[in-house]
Amino acid sequence: MIEVRSISTASIPSSLGRHFNMSLKPETRDKLKKVSTATLATALYKRGFRTQVIQDVRPLSPLAESMVGEAFTLRYMPAREDLNRLEVFRERGHPQREAIEECPPGAVMVMDSRKDARAASAGGILVTRLMKRGVAGVVTDGGFRDSAEIASLGFPAFHSRPSAPTNLTLHQAIEANVPIGCGDAPVFPGDVLVGDADGVVVLPAHLADELAEEATEMTAYEDFVIERVRNGEKTLGLYPPTDERNLELFAAWRKEHGR
Amino acid sequence: MIEVRSISTASIPSSLGRHFNMSLKPETRDKLKKVSTATLATALYKRGFRTQVIQDVRPLSPLAESMVGEAFTLRYMPAREDLNRLEVFRERGHPQREAIEECPPGAVMVMDSRKDARAASAGGILVTRLMKRGVAGVVTDGGFRDSAEIASLGFPAFHSRPSAPTNLTLHQAIEANVPIGCGDAPVFPGDVLVGDADGVVVLPAHLADELAEEATEMTAYEDFVIERVRNGEKTLGLYPPTDERNLELFAAWRKEHGR
Amino acid sequence: MIEVRSISTASIPSSLGRHFNMSLKPETRDKLKKVSTATLATALYKRGFRTQVIQDVRPLSPLAESMVGEAFTLRYMPAREDLNRLEVFRERGHPQREAIEECPPGAVMVMDSRKDARAASAGGILVTRLMKRGVAGVVTDGGFRDSAEIASLGFPAFHSRPSAPTNLTLHQAIEANVPIGCGDAPVFPGDVLVGDADGVVVLPAHLADELAEEATEMTAYEDFVIERVRNGEKTLGLYPPTDERNLELFAAWRKEHGR
Amino acid sequence: MIEVRSISTASIPSSLGRHFNMSLKPETRDKLKKVSTATLATALYKRGFRTQVIQDVRPLSPLAESMVGEAFTLRYMPAREDLNRLEVFRERGHPQREAIEECPPGAVMVMDSRKDARAASAGGILVTRLMKRGVAGVVTDGGFRDSAEIASLGFPAFHSRPSAPTNLTLHQAIEANVPIGCGDAPVFPGDVLVGDADGVVVLPAHLADELAEEATEMTAYEDFVIERVRNGEKTLGLYPPTDERNLELFAAWRKEHGR
Amino acid sequence: MIEVRSISTASIPSSLGRHFNMSLKPETRDKLKKVSTATLATALYKRGFRTQVIQDVRPLSPLAESMVGEAFTLRYMPAREDLNRLEVFRERGHPQREAIEECPPGAVMVMDSRKDARAASAGGILVTRLMKRGVAGVVTDGGFRDSAEIASLGFPAFHSRPSAPTNLTLHQAIEANVPIGCGDAPVFPGDVLVGDADGVVVLPAHLADELAEEATEMTAYEDFVIERVRNGEKTLGLYPPTDERNLELFAAWRKEHGR
Amino acid sequence: MIEVRSISTASIPSSLGRHFNMSLKPETRDKLKKVSTATLATALYKRGFRTQVIQDVRPLSPLAESMVGEAFTLRYMPAREDLNRLEVFRERGHPQREAIEECPPGAVMVMDSRKDARAASAGGILVTRLMKRGVAGVVTDGGFRDSAEIASLGFPAFHSRPSAPTNLTLHQAIEANVPIGCGDAPVFPGDVLVGDADGVVVLPAHLADELAEEATEMTAYEDFVIERVRNGEKTLGLYPPTDERNLELFAAWRKEHGR
Repeated sequence: MIEVRSISTASIPSSLGRHFNMSLKPETRDKLKKVSTATLATALYKRGFRTQVIQDVRPLSPLAESMVGEAFTLRYMPAREDLNRLEVFRERGHPQREAIEECPPGAVMVMDSRKDARAASAGGILVTRLMKRGVAGVVTDGGFRDSAEIASLGFPAFHSRPSAPTNLTLHQAIEANVPIGCGDAPVFPGDVLVGDADGVVVLPAHLADELAEEATEMTAYEDFVIERVRNGEKTLGLYPPTDERNLELFAAWRKEHGR
Repeated sequence: MIEVRSISTASIPSSLGRHFNMSLKPETRDKLKKVSTATLATALYKRGFRTQVIQDVRPLSPLAESMVGEAFTLRYMPAREDLNRLEVFRERGHPQREAIEECPPGAVMVMDSRKDARAASAGGILVTRLMKRGVAGVVTDGGFRDSAEIASLGFPAFHSRPSAPTNLTLHQAIEANVPIGCGDAPVFPGDVLVGDADGVVVLPAHLADELAEEATEMTAYEDFVIERVRNGEKTLGLYPPTDERNLELFAAWRKEHGR
Repeated sequence: MIEVRSISTASIPSSLGRHFNMSLKPETRDKLKKVSTATLATALYKRGFRTQVIQDVRPLSPLAESMVGEAFTLRYMPAREDLNRLEVFRERGHPQREAIEECPPGAVMVMDSRKDARAASAGGILVTRLMKRGVAGVVTDGGFRDSAEIASLGFPAFHSRPSAPTNLTLHQAIEANVPIGCGDAPVFPGDVLVGDADGVVVLPAHLADELAEEATEMTAYEDFVIERVRNGEKTLGLYPPTDERNLELFAAWRKEHGR
Repeated sequence: MIEVRSISTASIPSSLGRHFNMSLKPETRDKLKKVSTATLATALYKRGFRTQVIQDVRPLSPLAESMVGEAFTLRYMPAREDLNRLEVFRERGHPQREAIEECPPGAVMVMDSRKDARAASAGGILVTRLMKRGVAGVVTDGGFRDSAEIASLGFPAFHSRPSAPTNLTLHQAIEANVPIGCGDAPVFPGDVLVGDADGVVVLPAHLADELAEEATEMTAYEDFVIERVRNGEKTLGLYPPTDERNLELFAAWRKEHGR
Repeated sequence: MIEVRSISTASIPSSLGRHFNMSLKPETRDKLKKVSTATLATALYKRGFRTQVIQDVRPLSPLAESMVGEAFTLRYMPAREDLNRLEVFRERGHPQREAIEECPPGAVMVMDSRKDARAASAGGILVTRLMKRGVAGVVTDGGFRDSAEIASLGFPAFHSRPSAPTNLTLHQAIEANVPIGCGDAPVFPGDVLVGDADGVVVLPAHLADELAEEATEMTAYEDFVIERVRNGEKTLGLYPPTDERNLELFAAWRKEHGR
Repeated sequence: MIEVRSISTASIPSSLGRHFNMSLKPETRDKLKKVSTATLATALYKRGFRTQVIQDVRPLSPLAESMVGEAFTLRYMPAREDLNRLEVFRERGHPQREAIEECPPGAVMVMDSRKDARAASAGGILVTRLMKRGVAGVVTDGGFRDSAEIASLGFPAFHSRPSAPTNLTLHQAIEANVPIGCGDAPVFPGDVLVGDADGVVVLPAHLADELAEEATEMTAYEDFVIERVRNGEKTLGLYPPTDERNLELFAAWRKEHGR
């Protein structure tokens, strides 16, 4: 008999190894709560990252501040009928149910549903449980069921559209805490997810601090710009600041606003 | 009494024949108004039904209770230009206009628009007429025009997205009260449609009573579960109730809540 | 004579009624075999018809001449699991099997598979049976299984792509000889279908004669044009013939070639 | 070296030439603010126009009245990496930034984003600038970033969905004030755009006056119809008014309501 | 620091465990080479499997007999720019390159490319290497580059369409020999893949023997049927054999043909 | 009246200006005819270009060598009915017809059909004319009509799929020789297009020489590799050549083969 070695993520370049911890600094988390996914996407773009936005997801309810947390992943594969009878949920080791209980507080649970919202990725009970456990949010590139109930929780939950069918119909949870794709974006466990009304952006773990810092600076300038544009200023020379005078005015504005 | 003409399907297996009546029991209707499409989809799944959810439709306005009614169908086919001049609506026998006046009170009008929302399936005037006639709701796998007006009616109307063009542009109403597809789900006249924020589920007519009963029971347990999860309980052992103690607690909860 | 039962459509405008006969004139059929779908599509366009081409279908094997025949339709709807067990084919009245035996010789069987090729519309045995019965061709906007076998028949069969699963997986045959959509085109029973390497065009029954005549004339001019273009002539003034001289040359060419 | 003459819009039929001015009459603008895109789409349909609706766009916030303005176009093409570094915005002549400052007050800026919402067409700062400059609205068949901020402006902005990435990721602004496609609709500079909850319709410039007039008349009749339907009237004979009595009642209603 | 346990496929139901071996019996392999994917899909359907066909893949060149082999899987995720520079292929442990050398002879390499053919899953050199190593075939739900070269090998290779860009553009190989999705079908390592002109079907490992046996029987009957249909027999009563006489004729036919 | 300045491609960065000439060196053209689109796509990827492949197009007939030529562009926009009556072709200045006669010999005509193959981009007569004029090939991201006739020409023509309807149905030719998108790739006039069985790649004009040189070198190594792989060599260490010995063997191979 041929022995086939299981080639796992252990063999991917060691540079990936360090992305698996969940050690987002509190100050970085705080900064990220106050910046937008749009600003972060631009900061990523400057560094050559063009595919770090989870495409076509939106929050089920408005958010007071940006969702922030390390990615705890769950991978779904297409469901095979004999392995997805309703009784499978009676098994304690079912990967979906287990993942719900193991996702660390402060993390964001992110599900690879292969962009297929024809069946739910999860529903109201599991999302409520995540919220109660202190998880920072939940993201799927498929859909949630019980969407009205989830929307009423005020908990950051992002999906593509509501979907009533149980996940067993199409989605078999197969493993947690492995690199996945979500909405065409690569997500490694420990990457930092930030979400707002525009969707969700994935920050490579090793860049979270510098991106948070840069986005905070960019946000200050954007706030200054929007204030001036509201006052009738034109954007040429101001955004970006090719007119030197605007940099001086910005310096004064920062001092005035303590930013 | 409204006479609903049964068109065709004479040649499909006689086992289908009995689905064509419109005789949903009042107590079944009442039960269904209080359960969710997600719960019903799971009950259907248990019986081997995986395609009874009308995909990718949503209500134009929030609903106070689930929409419930027997399916009264309208089939659209692609419009041929010479048969769809604006004057066709002047013909009294136009199938769309006739269907609007013939859909029985309490029924749900459901339109096979071939998942094509590039032209409207209907607009504000016809939907208002359905509402005034006591129809329980309206569903299309295409789109409605006058969507803001329809949303303001508080009438259960489900579609894929708003769409301004007249239906003549793409949709020729061809027959009513025949089996159709809607959002990839099979819909036979007389099937029972239930709709909420997650979309619309199609209950085969002969299963409506037992599905309503089972979903009512499931909903009681889910309400118990969500209450406990909100109180910090974990889901393993509780959902599903593999831990016997939870069944005892549930029995007590039912007594207490009279359910 | 084969009796084709007209199912339904009693309620569509009487102006439609006359499209249901299967009386394509032999000389029209002969003309249509020698013209292309592209030329016919242009002749239809001149009359205001923009949606008479069945989109995204192609022949499984090259054709010696254009496929021509009156449309005999079969409508599929989404399959419901309890109505589509493998045993249903044992019922003699199954609409798909019945339609295969009833489609008139000389007609083209055309299937509304809702542009869904995830399961087959039919396979090698049924297509072979159609061929043996003298049917002129078969078209689906889904896919055929046994595609290599069908390709080897040299019989005009058009689909979107090969697909192995049995039709029961997704397609329930529900009625024959009714107006349908196929590849976004409207098809009424008795319409005349013409197919070649570019796909299939649907001629409204009452226009078949004049379209055949006009397309024959257009083809003569196009053949003249292509001959001249191959000889180095430029297209401006020639195609269309805004330069009078080209009409004179064409008159001479016709005489010379007996067309 | 071969000299290639640039064939521009100058060579398209002269009948197009006159669409490029921005001279919508104030009274036409006022009328259009009070009619719906659905009504206008029907009036266009009567004249043989079937593709004048920008497909699949919606307003970011509810509108008090319909958005109206002449089209000022911006064409995006796919972005090439070396031409879309973040620094390009420092060039004053960048077509996107220049277009934002040149779009005339009262016009609607409309962007051809090739129906690709994977990157933003614009964001909060530029849309705010358009609003401050007196522009009537902004439309893209892609998506906007900073969507919550834009929604809070109360400014007519239509898109397909929110999208965080900077436009440089996928969209290179290449020229303004040229004919474009937007959501599968043709848009010529100077065409009149009207938008409401159902989306956006494109009125050919030379037809704006007569369409505004006709839609105003149609709206009066529709308002009369909806009032009567709300009072329990059936639609047959009323909509359209094949029953003569309804025309008389309408005449009375107009007098009474001063319309 | 929070320790997150990696939940792997080890924790999925033990019933899955036994699918991971590569022990297809030679006689089963031989039978499967002589049956079609269509026949196997029907046999699977009888057992309640509706999603075991890899959707929308086709062979790059015609096959003399059906491709057969155990699935050796490779999972791609979306590529992140910093991890997919061209130099990564210089690392010996790169999962794609390692998988090419480890896929067992007789197995079929199957790649989860998330149905994304915008970049290649592999090219001519790697596919040639697989062929030389005695691998039975290769399948991706994306596309291959060097498609003309691969087609000339006469080696079973299935994809969706040709695609020139290097896989690094969009696909990061992340792990081999794990359960994956391919063309919406679930594929577990050790499942048996069978491919022909209609595409590829996935046989659950524990059912391979009985499916091979049943499909062989079905194929005998289908060959009998097609012979009779070619001789002018009608399908009713013959396919399926509801007319007893046909079973007798079939018995005789088998004896005559030694099947 | 407000004067709106037409912002044209004249205002895009001057670095673009020099791409508009048609001055591909004969030796570069010769080199490019002998390399594949896959190899060129990798060379582009090395330089940071990820979107230079025209997605989802294929040649209508096999090519003896790669198609090579400078891009001469034609931009289509959605057709408006009143501007696209059949008579428009009678106008000599029609942009499509004019472009056919002006596309320089040696260039490749490339059409932006907005990835919409529901109507043809061109047909047999115009493609034959291009061939006779010495044009190097023709590409559309839509479809051609008369596809069998075009396939028989042996002329490099690339499209997405055959399509019978006249271009007037959906496509209005609006301008030539401007930057366009084609199959999601940016194409500037003068860029160098190379096409083979895998599709078409777009080389930025200023990089054509160095890409041709580099791809020629890469092709030599790939030919060496494929020869060795055919002889049973494994790919690790060989492709890429991390094993030094392979570079030595390659040096010897080059000498032997004169490459």
